[in-house]
Amino acid sequence: MENSDVRGLITKCAASVKKSIENGRKPQLKLPKRGLSNVIYTPKTGYFKLDKNQITRTLTYNTVKSFAQSLRMMGLCKETIENAEEVSKREAYYISKNWEEARFDQQPESDTVMEDLEAMFRVNREQLGFVPEEKGGEVAGRLNVIDKDRQRGEKLKIDCTRFGRGAYSIPISVEELEFETSAKFILAIETAGMFQRLNNHAFWDKKNCILISLGGVPTRACRRFIRRLSDENNIPVYAFVDGDPYGYSNIYRTLTVGSGNSAHINEFFCVPEARLLGVTPYDIDTYELPTHPLSERDVKRAKDALKNDPFFKHHKAWRKALKKMIDMGVRVEQQAFAKHSLNFVIDTYLPEKLAKTGSFLP
Amino acid sequence: MENSDVRGLITKCAASVKKSIENGRKPQLKLPKRGLSNVIYTPKTGYFKLDKNQITRTLTYNTVKSFAQSLRMMGLCKETIENAEEVSKREAYYISKNWEEARFDQQPESDTVMEDLEAMFRVNREQLGFVPEEKGGEVAGRLNVIDKDRQRGEKLKIDCTRFGRGAYSIPISVEELEFETSAKFILAIETAGMFQRLNNHAFWDKKNCILISLGGVPTRACRRFIRRLSDENNIPVYAFVDGDPYGYSNIYRTLTVGSGNSAHINEFFCVPEARLLGVTPYDIDTYELPTHPLSERDVKRAKDALKNDPFFKHHKAWRKALKKMIDMGVRVEQQAFAKHSLNFVIDTYLPEKLAKTGSFLP
Repeated sequence: MENSDVRGLITKCAASVKKSIENGRKPQLKLPKRGLSNVIYTPKTGYFKLDKNQITRTLTYNTVKSFAQSLRMMGLCKETIENAEEVSKREAYYISKNWEEARFDQQPESDTVMEDLEAMFRVNREQLGFVPEEKGGEVAGRLNVIDKDRQRGEKLKIDCTRFGRGAYSIPISVEELEFETSAKFILAIETAGMFQRLNNHAFWDKKNCILISLGGVPTRACRRFIRRLSDENNIPVYAFVDGDPYGYSNIYRTLTVGSGNSAHINEFFCVPEARLLGVTPYDIDTYELPTHPLSERDVKRAKDALKNDPFFKHHKAWRKALKKMIDMGVRVEQQAFAKHSLNFVIDTYLPEKLAKTGSFLP
Repeated sequence: MENSDVRGLITKCAASVKKSIENGRKPQLKLPKRGLSNVIYTPKTGYFKLDKNQITRTLTYNTVKSFAQSLRMMGLCKETIENAEEVSKREAYYISKNWEEARFDQQPESDTVMEDLEAMFRVNREQLGFVPEEKGGEVAGRLNVIDKDRQRGEKLKIDCTRFGRGAYSIPISVEELEFETSAKFILAIETAGMFQRLNNHAFWDKKNCILISLGGVPTRACRRFIRRLSDENNIPVYAFVDGDPYGYSNIYRTLTVGSGNSAHINEFFCVPEARLLGVTPYDIDTYELPTHPLSERDVKRAKDALKNDPFFKHHKAWRKALKKMIDMGVRVEQQAFAKHSLNFVIDTYLPEKLAKTGSFLP
């Protein structure tokens, strides 16, 4: 959605509130109910999606403060979009200190109102001019990122093959970036150490790909970057994470289908086309990898995923893999390949796996 | 220290072990005792430094395994340096799985042996071919980083003014980087959100400086990068952190004088010339900033710093500032300036502070 469209939605909503008041009716705001009870999982679209339940907020004596706060927040969004500015959640909280009786007393209150607006307009926070506080995600390889030099207004071409041992750090908001690439795939890597090894050896050059370091559970900006890059250029995404329940059900699942708690934005942030390259429980046998015993917490996490997570429940291949891991009672780290030799992962493991992408876990 | 020198130290040490054995004497390794009991604080050098206490490890029936492990680790370092490779701590642990009886059973054991070698040779881990697992630190502004294209062997000039809203991500090891800059100062920023705001507005262009995002407590690579950049180009470092005991005693203090637990490497990783721009407790009054009450933990951290930390104890200006913060009973965040307007921090606060760097906290 273009910024001007979002501005239009805000203006339209505000106009309807104004009209109600002028006509002597109580103004209302309608927004989707947020939370797991209003979520549907559609294997076809591939992510947790908001269902149709709506709640209506009517201006009354009791709701006057929160109603005013919603309108002020809409005003802030409109201003931010018009000035091509960006506001972090924390900054929005501090800005509200000037809203007299509509000021927020705690940041969680202002965060909630902002998330309501996301859901109400069915856009993501970044499209409302808001940005997260946290950064994350590094990129190296066969990709030009096209950004704008804000001072001079000219286009900037950022060549991600030209950073040596360093990398391109993904900005907090990626909506305005454009991409040029002829890469065959994106390799999304859990640990910074493995990313650094692959980058030092220019693995992206050997395999014509783009390396992205997730740095643990990927941030919104990192997920959105991968999603847009993959969608717009039709490139597959392969995830390379530790072989443990955290790597599968937290990192990989969040990347692929999003999270249950923020179903109203998964649409923008999930990468449903991602596939898991490894490390799989089967790799432990095939490559005779050193392992660690699963902790109680690991086992609980894996069993929870099998029992309660619509994603893992839906995919037979995942159920089988998780059960095998629980049966084996062990987990494996990305670095375990170093047992064979430092670059075994580059020379043997990754090429062998990439030769049979059809067998990757969904 | 050049890599060839480090290799020489390893060879020399191994030769002396060999000679002892050939002469029928028990071989010995001498290394400094590590820990706070063997640390001196010299305000002149400005960081926690190892004192002279040494321990001697002699090869006996009881020490044969750990002695062998130290020698195998030295061998791994030598190989790594010769092959211009890099090994992470976790990879070293997995490599040891091939050392038969000298293999490590847990990663903390191999980490300790590696840290002993750092202390023994008085070098940092990176100079032994080891790299940390964690990455961190982003850079934007008036700086060219000179790196090498490992595939083609040619020099790569990375212009940190050409990343748009993105940034240059610091690699895990920075020993081989070179710098070209005419910047007047380095601004080291605690939060990714504030870094992004200053970068979006090209603050580095207005003030001819280099922006570095610390992302909380700075990683080794980030601290080493700032140290080398500052030393070799004689540029001052100004820190801009949240105004709370964590920002002062964890983030700023670690950046400036290093940490007590790793005194054997502070020499390489501290930035003794750094100064604190803000946010200071005095700024709360001057700029009428919204605050949060100090938590019990905040108060404890501040009192601990006053009582036990040689750095804060040494500097009168810091004692005064910490006492003022405890008396006020409040802390302040970097984002608090947004109360006045989103870019107040860029248009007013930073320029006013930068006009009187002499008053920065040491």
